[in-house]
Amino acid sequence: MISVFDGGWMQSLFADAEAGALWSAETQMGQYLAFEAAWSRALGRVGLAAPDSAERAAKVIERFAPDMARLHADTARDGLPVPGLVRQLREAAAEDADAVHRGATSQDVMDTGLSLTLRALDDLLLTRLARLQSALSTLVARFGDNTMMGRTRMQAALPIPAGHRVAAWAAPLDDHAARLTRLRPMAERLQLGGAVGTRDGLDGKGAAMAAIMADALGLHNPAQPWHTDRSGLTDYGNCLSLITGSLGKMGQDICLMAQQGVNEIALAQGGGSSAMPHKSNPILAELLVTLARFNATQVAGLHQTMVHEQERSGAAWALEWMILPQMTMTCARALSAATTLCERIDRIGAPVT
Amino acid sequence: MISVFDGGWMQSLFADAEAGALWSAETQMGQYLAFEAAWSRALGRVGLAAPDSAERAAKVIERFAPDMARLHADTARDGLPVPGLVRQLREAAAEDADAVHRGATSQDVMDTGLSLTLRALDDLLLTRLARLQSALSTLVARFGDNTMMGRTRMQAALPIPAGHRVAAWAAPLDDHAARLTRLRPMAERLQLGGAVGTRDGLDGKGAAMAAIMADALGLHNPAQPWHTDRSGLTDYGNCLSLITGSLGKMGQDICLMAQQGVNEIALAQGGGSSAMPHKSNPILAELLVTLARFNATQVAGLHQTMVHEQERSGAAWALEWMILPQMTMTCARALSAATTLCERIDRIGAPVT
Amino acid sequence: MISVFDGGWMQSLFADAEAGALWSAETQMGQYLAFEAAWSRALGRVGLAAPDSAERAAKVIERFAPDMARLHADTARDGLPVPGLVRQLREAAAEDADAVHRGATSQDVMDTGLSLTLRALDDLLLTRLARLQSALSTLVARFGDNTMMGRTRMQAALPIPAGHRVAAWAAPLDDHAARLTRLRPMAERLQLGGAVGTRDGLDGKGAAMAAIMADALGLHNPAQPWHTDRSGLTDYGNCLSLITGSLGKMGQDICLMAQQGVNEIALAQGGGSSAMPHKSNPILAELLVTLARFNATQVAGLHQTMVHEQERSGAAWALEWMILPQMTMTCARALSAATTLCERIDRIGAPVT
Amino acid sequence: MISVFDGGWMQSLFADAEAGALWSAETQMGQYLAFEAAWSRALGRVGLAAPDSAERAAKVIERFAPDMARLHADTARDGLPVPGLVRQLREAAAEDADAVHRGATSQDVMDTGLSLTLRALDDLLLTRLARLQSALSTLVARFGDNTMMGRTRMQAALPIPAGHRVAAWAAPLDDHAARLTRLRPMAERLQLGGAVGTRDGLDGKGAAMAAIMADALGLHNPAQPWHTDRSGLTDYGNCLSLITGSLGKMGQDICLMAQQGVNEIALAQGGGSSAMPHKSNPILAELLVTLARFNATQVAGLHQTMVHEQERSGAAWALEWMILPQMTMTCARALSAATTLCERIDRIGAPVT
Repeated sequence: MISVFDGGWMQSLFADAEAGALWSAETQMGQYLAFEAAWSRALGRVGLAAPDSAERAAKVIERFAPDMARLHADTARDGLPVPGLVRQLREAAAEDADAVHRGATSQDVMDTGLSLTLRALDDLLLTRLARLQSALSTLVARFGDNTMMGRTRMQAALPIPAGHRVAAWAAPLDDHAARLTRLRPMAERLQLGGAVGTRDGLDGKGAAMAAIMADALGLHNPAQPWHTDRSGLTDYGNCLSLITGSLGKMGQDICLMAQQGVNEIALAQGGGSSAMPHKSNPILAELLVTLARFNATQVAGLHQTMVHEQERSGAAWALEWMILPQMTMTCARALSAATTLCERIDRIGAPVT
Repeated sequence: MISVFDGGWMQSLFADAEAGALWSAETQMGQYLAFEAAWSRALGRVGLAAPDSAERAAKVIERFAPDMARLHADTARDGLPVPGLVRQLREAAAEDADAVHRGATSQDVMDTGLSLTLRALDDLLLTRLARLQSALSTLVARFGDNTMMGRTRMQAALPIPAGHRVAAWAAPLDDHAARLTRLRPMAERLQLGGAVGTRDGLDGKGAAMAAIMADALGLHNPAQPWHTDRSGLTDYGNCLSLITGSLGKMGQDICLMAQQGVNEIALAQGGGSSAMPHKSNPILAELLVTLARFNATQVAGLHQTMVHEQERSGAAWALEWMILPQMTMTCARALSAATTLCERIDRIGAPVT
Repeated sequence: MISVFDGGWMQSLFADAEAGALWSAETQMGQYLAFEAAWSRALGRVGLAAPDSAERAAKVIERFAPDMARLHADTARDGLPVPGLVRQLREAAAEDADAVHRGATSQDVMDTGLSLTLRALDDLLLTRLARLQSALSTLVARFGDNTMMGRTRMQAALPIPAGHRVAAWAAPLDDHAARLTRLRPMAERLQLGGAVGTRDGLDGKGAAMAAIMADALGLHNPAQPWHTDRSGLTDYGNCLSLITGSLGKMGQDICLMAQQGVNEIALAQGGGSSAMPHKSNPILAELLVTLARFNATQVAGLHQTMVHEQERSGAAWALEWMILPQMTMTCARALSAATTLCERIDRIGAPVT
Repeated sequence: MISVFDGGWMQSLFADAEAGALWSAETQMGQYLAFEAAWSRALGRVGLAAPDSAERAAKVIERFAPDMARLHADTARDGLPVPGLVRQLREAAAEDADAVHRGATSQDVMDTGLSLTLRALDDLLLTRLARLQSALSTLVARFGDNTMMGRTRMQAALPIPAGHRVAAWAAPLDDHAARLTRLRPMAERLQLGGAVGTRDGLDGKGAAMAAIMADALGLHNPAQPWHTDRSGLTDYGNCLSLITGSLGKMGQDICLMAQQGVNEIALAQGGGSSAMPHKSNPILAELLVTLARFNATQVAGLHQTMVHEQERSGAAWALEWMILPQMTMTCARALSAATTLCERIDRIGAPVT
């Protein structure tokens, strides 16, 4: 129960099965192997390995089931899973070992694997953004003409249509979907730099390898390696936190609307209390605030990772591993929670009399 | 000396005259008055004030010099300068007082004023990004063919051309310029919502007023008020920190290259020490790291402001005032420092022998 | 692999078996049950339940194995595990149900459970601080009289004894141990407030219940409930980050010392590279920097939780759940990594000639 | 108007005259000169300068008015004001120049100067904490027996005495005062390390110099230099943010209590609106939330400074200069605002009927 996203009962509130599946060890290993198999084939295509040998190696890699205990031990020593994985793959490839990972480096595998994860995540997030927009449209259709008090600086100001409040929740979501779509080429791109980012060791076939790999994996092919330029991922994390921030505003509004004495919203299925059976707590609305403030905190850590020294910073890179997956889960969960919350709204404001 | 950006000797290192001028009380007041003068004229155009009266009011506003002591006292009471300013303007407008600020609210003035500031800032930042790109190109031309050790995880890896290292500094800058350009419509836009964001009190002329105002002030005219949606400004702050983050990587690299025993760069005009006259400290390179980590810290605060409850959050809005101006200064200074630093580089790497 | 601390291969680098065990679902449930069993007995002691009934209920609770699927479902609805757990406990206690949880609230159970976790953690951290101090003393004994270059602002300054550098790593550790020891009464304390922090529903026996509970659980008994005052936990998190920050300085120093061209340290058993077999990366030293910057990021989130509105903030409280366990793991791992790193140092500086 | 704390009208809301005076250029220069004068005399006392010469130098320093334009230019070059200041002082001391700054370094002057600032600040903060406690006691005396609704998770729970709510605001303040008092020896201590922290250049008189200096300046004399161990200052900043966090909770509560429909508090002298003359905004309560979230953001930056490499990190040190002064102002202002806010409370809760 170190992480609210997996293990224990807290995951019942925080976790997200679809997004979580993207981060399973199976999926992640699958992405490493997808890279390595495509890499072997690409080596064959550009003539850095014999085509037959390359294909055999790729087939071995595709079906490979790593010795996980050994992989864990190697990761502990190397600080990265890839060196150990490559050792295992080369052993499995036997006489085709030269067609495995040649000219690639750990970061190529792991960053590209991350890109594959983010591609699937982006599909999920965009779908959820659309679903939430739809749920909000339904609220406008149902309650938009009701009236409620507009409140500024936590003081009653002037009456507003209930639809005005809901529209304020919906307005940023289209921007966020546009942002996320615009970021896709930067988040879903091949990493190919080799040992020091110069694609040494590929006998001048680096560009060709990159084109083949990007095509094979369905990723964008950037003009150059981005191994030390973490602005793309940081910008991506920023977008995740913008989404959760907007949903946090919606959550905070709903918490305030649900107060006794204010009574601007009616929610079905609130959370129960162990001490006060009469209570119905706006659990999901609170959760949106929590998730917003969590991602707002994390985004600072991502920005710190941009001071990524020289040709590869172990320290800065590993900080991304600690932060970015959690930010994706936070965003995915906030979207699903917001949609569920919309569906549990029985009333906003009051009919105009 | 509370802020390194103004007051005392620290500003000699941190401050930036051009960017700082944008935040002077004179400039800021000028933007408030520009809003109010344009507003009076717009009221005349749409028929919410008599055109003659509106024009007279606008002329008074344009020439107005506020009683600053009174403005300060009013700000202390109201938590905002605008209510007090409007009182002074209405007194000055005398019989034209009805053509002053009618239907507008404090946030319209202050957010729009911020947009005017950011418009000027964007011009400055884009100019500086181009200048830095040029300085880096010069470095590539001078030293690009030299050789140096590529270093990963702070260990010698394989030799690289010096130009490869410099290219890694330059690569993100074009992305940043593109980002900033893309963000301009969101950062440089009119705010017009009135008391609760519904443009009440404008007799249905809200859209017309917005079009006239945006045109008069040279700002973008968004589809709707953004008073509670702070994602645009937060995204803008993110971009400022992405820029400083990339420059922080460059600064950290240069600090490492300048180490005795590594000797991969020669810098002219380092900083002196009070205890060790023989030292030449890489002041500007260190400064880039400092500025990067400062903005990385601040960006979290901006994300927290997105939980902006109801129709206006005094608490969340004021947090922007504390953070965003400093982030702009940090970014402007980092760009100028990076360019100066480039100009002081006498050598990178060593000639290939 | 959402969290580097559990699941997948990354845990081989980041996870910590001893600290991790404190956060297992089993341990955490054990602490909830310890609270509830002690609570039932305390109700019997003060006369709020019949002593026999209270003892029977406590025995049932002590041996209780929750229906976890049901608990998960209830947590999803209530936003908390305790209401559902109490339902199960009352069913199990059957005719003794009135002696279960009466007058307590979810936060009493969960905050007190956290205190029990932190008590065990503090023992662990203090032991590790002492072990690290010992490892550093060994380094001073072995290499303290060697010489190396003192470096300020990343420039060679004046020679220093190697022991001076190591002493700088050791110096803050005693302060941290003292801090942690001083914080124990605040981190390891009973929470007992009842529904709204007034200990209502205990018929005036609140103080007696608190004294009995604190004694039974081996926790401190604060003068009043701290349910809305999160400064103790925030201060605790600060201490965790102070520890990791000091170790981050040590890690950064070692990374710099291990550079080719600087050569101030010799490390055994560095990490391997998938592309460059000749490399030996200072994995654990980098890890210390990563962990320091991670906790430095998180501490801001804890401080945000202090804006804990009214008698209980669901939003602020849940943010603690997302952050604090990770900070404890980060600190525990940094301490073990630092000690291991010390043990792998073969040389610091050079003998004075 | 880069900083809300000085310049422009925003300072009317945010600034604090007493705390601000501690950071004026005059006060700060006075502290540098206090260090240098005491240093010259100490050199005389331990025999590193002729006593007469030392006394003459000290007298010159005490009366010295630096050429500020020159100091600014030197700071721009050196990244620090001290090298330039020392040049001026030595010129002024003429034949006594050898009794100026000998064996000291910039960090000794600046860190010790900071300690002097924090000593005065601590006096101020402790006085304000006591004053606020007194104001809260008055509230309890006036309204403590009133009743109001206790609210958990933003839902009405059970009635509480108004005094219970106020007591929750007061409870952490004593802890904070104790914390701050306990931190004084670490915040208000001499820094004396010389060029690389070994007190080289003092001919073995380092300990004697430190004792004399600490005594002369009224500071604590730590067992060793703390130039690279920034945990003391980071812990201090943490304490500042704990204080503002507790006040942020109070501010958020008051904002919620002041809502129409809730009506649990009556405030005199709220802030006016430019659009809605009928409004009375809880300006100071909102400000407390803003200040809390600002410091919560900044504290992460201080923790980042702990990765302070080698014998002096220019990059990490300068980050403190950007952050810590603002945190002190935020804390001082929050305390004064909270006390003023208490004095403007006309009612809490309602009489028990």
